[in-house]
Amino acid sequence: MVLINENYLKLKAGYLFPEIERRVKTYKKENPDKKIISLGIGDVTRPLPEAITKAMHLAVAEMATAEGFHGYGPSAGYDFLREKILKFDFSDHGINLEADEIFVSDGSKCDSANIQEIFAKESRIAIPDPVYPVYLDTNVMAGRTGEMDGSGRYSGILYLSCTAENNFLPPLPEKDPDIIYLCFPNNPTGAVATHGVLSDWVKYAKEKRAIILFDAAYEAFIQDKTLPHSIYEIPGAREVAIELRSFSKNAGFTGTRAAYMVIPKILMAFDKGGKPHAVHALWNRRHNTKFNGVSYPIQRAAEAVYASEGRKQVQSLIDYYMKNAAIISRELKSLNLAHWGSDNAPYIWLKTPTLKGSAQRLTSWEFFDLMLNKANLVGTPGSGFGPSGEGYFRLSAFGNRENVEEAVSRISRVLE
Amino acid sequence: MVLINENYLKLKAGYLFPEIERRVKTYKKENPDKKIISLGIGDVTRPLPEAITKAMHLAVAEMATAEGFHGYGPSAGYDFLREKILKFDFSDHGINLEADEIFVSDGSKCDSANIQEIFAKESRIAIPDPVYPVYLDTNVMAGRTGEMDGSGRYSGILYLSCTAENNFLPPLPEKDPDIIYLCFPNNPTGAVATHGVLSDWVKYAKEKRAIILFDAAYEAFIQDKTLPHSIYEIPGAREVAIELRSFSKNAGFTGTRAAYMVIPKILMAFDKGGKPHAVHALWNRRHNTKFNGVSYPIQRAAEAVYASEGRKQVQSLIDYYMKNAAIISRELKSLNLAHWGSDNAPYIWLKTPTLKGSAQRLTSWEFFDLMLNKANLVGTPGSGFGPSGEGYFRLSAFGNRENVEEAVSRISRVLE
Repeated sequence: MVLINENYLKLKAGYLFPEIERRVKTYKKENPDKKIISLGIGDVTRPLPEAITKAMHLAVAEMATAEGFHGYGPSAGYDFLREKILKFDFSDHGINLEADEIFVSDGSKCDSANIQEIFAKESRIAIPDPVYPVYLDTNVMAGRTGEMDGSGRYSGILYLSCTAENNFLPPLPEKDPDIIYLCFPNNPTGAVATHGVLSDWVKYAKEKRAIILFDAAYEAFIQDKTLPHSIYEIPGAREVAIELRSFSKNAGFTGTRAAYMVIPKILMAFDKGGKPHAVHALWNRRHNTKFNGVSYPIQRAAEAVYASEGRKQVQSLIDYYMKNAAIISRELKSLNLAHWGSDNAPYIWLKTPTLKGSAQRLTSWEFFDLMLNKANLVGTPGSGFGPSGEGYFRLSAFGNRENVEEAVSRISRVLE
Repeated sequence: MVLINENYLKLKAGYLFPEIERRVKTYKKENPDKKIISLGIGDVTRPLPEAITKAMHLAVAEMATAEGFHGYGPSAGYDFLREKILKFDFSDHGINLEADEIFVSDGSKCDSANIQEIFAKESRIAIPDPVYPVYLDTNVMAGRTGEMDGSGRYSGILYLSCTAENNFLPPLPEKDPDIIYLCFPNNPTGAVATHGVLSDWVKYAKEKRAIILFDAAYEAFIQDKTLPHSIYEIPGAREVAIELRSFSKNAGFTGTRAAYMVIPKILMAFDKGGKPHAVHALWNRRHNTKFNGVSYPIQRAAEAVYASEGRKQVQSLIDYYMKNAAIISRELKSLNLAHWGSDNAPYIWLKTPTLKGSAQRLTSWEFFDLMLNKANLVGTPGSGFGPSGEGYFRLSAFGNRENVEEAVSRISRVLE
């Protein structure tokens, strides 16, 4: 008799975004005339830059010819792309890596979901709370947790509470972790980490012989020139950290699909006898066995992100979204709504207000429903990212300008 | 201390194709003037059909506009593609499925690698031998086996020996399996299954409450009109079978990346208490959590496979490769080399010969080295697909005509 992986039964309700989609669908069905604006899911809205679509057209044209056709490519990506990534994202910033330490993939969601497979089932996982749900859910599916308790936390996980009180910076865990998930600039809170903060983590991981999974999907939005873009700017980080990068948010690839993960060859994990094994070799085996590379035209598109025109055009996309972030932040300030993010991240993390005549702050989902019903605006309930997100709400800056301006005036109308 | 998934240490040597690549690279380095022809890895060589690149160009152009831009799409694929698949691959052939039972993905390698995750770690796996290595290796990685023994078999796996004696048709397992991998037309042997053969499997799976993973990646190459293309042509199969299909081999998508998997909602697996759970819901959760959909232009390319021009052009690709298969088979016949496949599959599975003056047949790798060194031809050693593949060798029909003709004349020169 075929048995299921019962760990799946521990997962509560739907994945956050399908649940949002469901509520929006219901509202739309009952209110077909209402124009809903979404600043919910962190999805970009601006067209792909011209340099990028031009490269894709060229690659598609190649695929139509006998000489230019590309079949199976290297699972970890073509050298033309890995070399560009190496130069522009690392070498030019004084970071010492090799091109074959870069694994090109079809998305950071997949990378952050799959990387846990190469580690022991018994690994103790440290995860910030609130957090991008994929880090947690994939560990639940893999059996690294017990059941969820009444507070919305799974037993067996080391949660690192991030709230206004600690400036949304995860504290060092009280128990020894094996794998630590960090994300800066942070999704959902928009928090950033200084060199000092990251240095503490690198030092801590080294002491504990733990590995840091560093999600830098939003590094392109950093404005403050003193902040690190890569964890490898910290001396010694190559010995303890895997870094994830994505083309989704900077270059608008959410529907185009490309990302990469860096695994330095010097990074070790251990067998039960204490013998070190290169994580790079394990992941290489996993990548070769379970993945067949990113579509050739998409890799050419990603390459174009690094050409001179591409870089300019991508920068102007980022500037566009960061201006959105500033517009939202300004409006929230004028409403006296406490909020974070928006300076170095495309997210605004706000504290839900207490409505007039009420004694209590709105919960995240109450605020979600209020925004949906009264402002026809979709955001993301903070509690969907973890219990410490309760009472917070995420707005994304990835809208079109017109929608963002309309959105903030609707928020004002409802909350003033 | 971070521990590795020690199941990875059970994997022997490299994945088959990297090992072939390594030997070819070494030979090329030592013989830079030699022109090597590859009929090894099952990779297509003809350009993408015009109808398909046209659709990709249109989609890329859309992505460059504000109105036509696509961000995150549905993880399981756009309706426009799922509806086409449903109609042309199933409904038109009298098979009753629904569009949302189709999960679009970036490849059958990924699908066949990932599907095992939703089943219990204790599942007993039945796998043909020889077999596409991904089925086996991903179960080793997941911890469903013990170590490999001296014969090249992992303990805990039910191997189904496929040899000339049983016409390369896997026998029903002696012990009860939970999950059964089947592939028809078969990679690597080219064997096909009649309605009768598949009916026996469906009946057997129902009796044992097992699930069949049916890999139909090569169905487009079936020439014999009496053979089933889908397992769902067998009554009752929807209750026991998952079917995998790919755009790689029919439409030339090995470097473009698109495939799909069918999971009927009626298909159940069980928890330890014997309660049934829809496999569809489990996979849907997995797909939503760990995957973010296939690139929009690639889904438009796949859609074009089903338009009238696309279907004609894809058919002519298939005809082209099947003529290659016929050319190879004719030559092997004239050399009196026993071989199978080539009639309804793009693979030729040949028995290695006994060289003059020798008492024994060549092993698969000996024949590989002979072909590489003397004919500058790359094929795939049968033993790389499993111990029962020892003494066999796979040639792929996916070459260009000129190369195929040159290849067969080289084989003749070496073996005559």
